[in-house]
Amino acid sequence: MLPDRSFFDRLADAAKAETLPRFRTGTSVTNKLAGGFDPVTEGDRAAETAIRALISQQFPEHGILGEEHENVGLDREHVWVIDPIDGTRAFISGLPTWGTLIGLRSNGRASMGMMDQPFTGERYFADGEKSWYRGPDGEHQIFTRDCGKLSDAILFTTSPHIFEGADLVAYKSVEEKVRLFRYGTDCYAYTLLAGGHIDIVVENNLKPYDVGALIPIIEQAGGIITTWDGGRPEEGGNIIAAGSRAVYEEVRALLAR
Amino acid sequence: MLPDRSFFDRLADAAKAETLPRFRTGTSVTNKLAGGFDPVTEGDRAAETAIRALISQQFPEHGILGEEHENVGLDREHVWVIDPIDGTRAFISGLPTWGTLIGLRSNGRASMGMMDQPFTGERYFADGEKSWYRGPDGEHQIFTRDCGKLSDAILFTTSPHIFEGADLVAYKSVEEKVRLFRYGTDCYAYTLLAGGHIDIVVENNLKPYDVGALIPIIEQAGGIITTWDGGRPEEGGNIIAAGSRAVYEEVRALLAR
Repeated sequence: MLPDRSFFDRLADAAKAETLPRFRTGTSVTNKLAGGFDPVTEGDRAAETAIRALISQQFPEHGILGEEHENVGLDREHVWVIDPIDGTRAFISGLPTWGTLIGLRSNGRASMGMMDQPFTGERYFADGEKSWYRGPDGEHQIFTRDCGKLSDAILFTTSPHIFEGADLVAYKSVEEKVRLFRYGTDCYAYTLLAGGHIDIVVENNLKPYDVGALIPIIEQAGGIITTWDGGRPEEGGNIIAAGSRAVYEEVRALLAR
Repeated sequence: MLPDRSFFDRLADAAKAETLPRFRTGTSVTNKLAGGFDPVTEGDRAAETAIRALISQQFPEHGILGEEHENVGLDREHVWVIDPIDGTRAFISGLPTWGTLIGLRSNGRASMGMMDQPFTGERYFADGEKSWYRGPDGEHQIFTRDCGKLSDAILFTTSPHIFEGADLVAYKSVEEKVRLFRYGTDCYAYTLLAGGHIDIVVENNLKPYDVGALIPIIEQAGGIITTWDGGRPEEGGNIIAAGSRAVYEEVRALLAR
């Protein structure tokens, strides 16, 4: 049996109950560390525990791959892929561009996913066929856009500092050709792409739980997400996401050099 | 006569009516440009026009310094300093970290200010003595924090690309000593600092309207904001903002080298 949107909503709500009260708590980083666990680590673990409890109850036959706790049954038909707080640096800084990522893989392929930003009240959901947005500005199906060519594109990445050596050279070759680039938005960048607001995300060294929920949200909105060499993105690694085939091909050609 | 909070709220509401409907309109950058004005330029101009109309009606004796229209009466006792959309790149990208900045200078000194983020529903206000926050998580007076020392600080700047030559060397000398740094948040970074969530903002080449509203919000929350050489920040230029004197002095010593 597969989950429906209301089950994903229950998971996101359970995570939100653990994350949002720990967001902007106003204590300095030093104070957080002096007390043992910091709020983001606490929130991360508690949220993942809450999500896992609901999944184990409702879908005991499913596997779970998470950031904070031990993986369970990764060889099963359905596997949940969870990152309770993607964008911990944003979370720590009070910036509402982090998100709770909840994905479902079926037979190794990312098939459903939710990204929830509890502070802004934005929730993205891929139901297996279509991608949807709910937020302060309403609820609607979302589609990526085709900006036509790389020189008209808006590019996001977490930070230029995530790239080194050949990866940095490759990344820079894309950055210098786009219309506009921005740093520092983690999962929020992928959902902006799914919603048709930006055109490209390029990152490297991602973990499976960084992308598990985002792959279906992008693909079911009409976008493309692969590794830099064009492979399936489920295992993470170096990732390209683009709103259209034309722009994707331009980026991939530059990264492949 | 000086304005009160409700008058600032009227100004921010008038701006919001012009900016928010143009945010995330889903058209690509190319389409925006092909049609003549893009939504951000339209929103910027219309919002400033709306703000100016209310000011001229209520306070005809005040001057106005704005980003989009001609300055009026800059030598008057009270001068409004307006940036209807600070963070146009964020606006264009669908990222809710732009803001409407409305400041008031009295006898050359920034004395009152508001920053409004209409999408998230966050509004910061300096009333002449204290700084306040309203948002999804309630309403309260805000205070900057003292993280103790630079090595425990969170630093924000718009982008490392805003610095060149000696400015870049100076900026990097700060960046490499902090606990955490983030790029790309414009006015939102200054309000996070005022709210006690981050510790330092370092930027350069700012215009008076980039900081006019933010100076009182930071100062009346207990923070420090000056030029890199320790002067008053009203005219913009190279700017340091910090949550505490100790951290400010560490940053300033590095930037002065």
